[in-house]
Amino acid sequence: MTQTASAPALLTPEDLLSHWQGHRRLTRRVIEAFPEDQLFSFAIGSMRPFGVMAWEIHQVSELTLTGLLSGEWAMPQWRDGVASNRRELLHVWDALTAQLDREFLKVDPAFYTQQHSLPWGEMPGWVATIYCIDNEIHHRGEGYVYLRALGTEPPAFYER
Amino acid sequence: MTQTASAPALLTPEDLLSHWQGHRRLTRRVIEAFPEDQLFSFAIGSMRPFGVMAWEIHQVSELTLTGLLSGEWAMPQWRDGVASNRRELLHVWDALTAQLDREFLKVDPAFYTQQHSLPWGEMPGWVATIYCIDNEIHHRGEGYVYLRALGTEPPAFYER
Repeated sequence: MTQTASAPALLTPEDLLSHWQGHRRLTRRVIEAFPEDQLFSFAIGSMRPFGVMAWEIHQVSELTLTGLLSGEWAMPQWRDGVASNRRELLHVWDALTAQLDREFLKVDPAFYTQQHSLPWGEMPGWVATIYCIDNEIHHRGEGYVYLRALGTEPPAFYER
Repeated sequence: MTQTASAPALLTPEDLLSHWQGHRRLTRRVIEAFPEDQLFSFAIGSMRPFGVMAWEIHQVSELTLTGLLSGEWAMPQWRDGVASNRRELLHVWDALTAQLDREFLKVDPAFYTQQHSLPWGEMPGWVATIYCIDNEIHHRGEGYVYLRALGTEPPAFYER
């Protein structure tokens, strides 16, 4: 999981930001697609409602951006400040989206190949970043099934 | 979505292969977790059974590896050779996993920043590759809900 400085660049930090923000836009559309009264209540098979998953996505994303910028990876307080309705959730969502646009390219590129101590293990910055995005895709995929079960057509996966 | 040759490498081709193969191992465990009689039949809200989604993942993965190696991105024949049981599905799954290990690092690194003509649009090789993996994560997330609805504990998301 390490590399030499002479390795060819497969993507730039701008590409990684574009990738992440594209997924954030799609997840935002999924949050908006839920009937307001189901976002924090509907669930299947003892799973969490999608609004609660989206709050977790927000917290992991915030942790990841903070960690990449500072080297500090504190375990999120999962229950602190949790949104309980769509308006609150979209408010923090949009604030972090704007912060990502302002700050992500300030991350030291060397951080991506260095090892970091996350609450869930030691890993390079690249792995920490893509894990955060993958976790969003994973839970959003679960949200797609909730929407289908509610009879709502989800947003197109390929549109970002 | 382009870059100069002097851009710092955020990850190596080996890192990208490791990322992809980690997801393939997890998806294989999800395929194995389904009750045999539900893999190609159980679905929620007019969606496809997970076995059919896994077949699509296989075809997109095969297309992506072939495209990266050859520059040829032919639309898959979605209905050709479709697996209809777990044994057939795992047979093609494992063959492609072995092929990825043999061939992925032969991909010209320059391909990741060049534009390619996929059946679903023009994009750099990096975007084509990560879209393929994202599509797998997305449908596998849907499969997690199917498993929960069937009363089966899915494999841990963080284990690869």
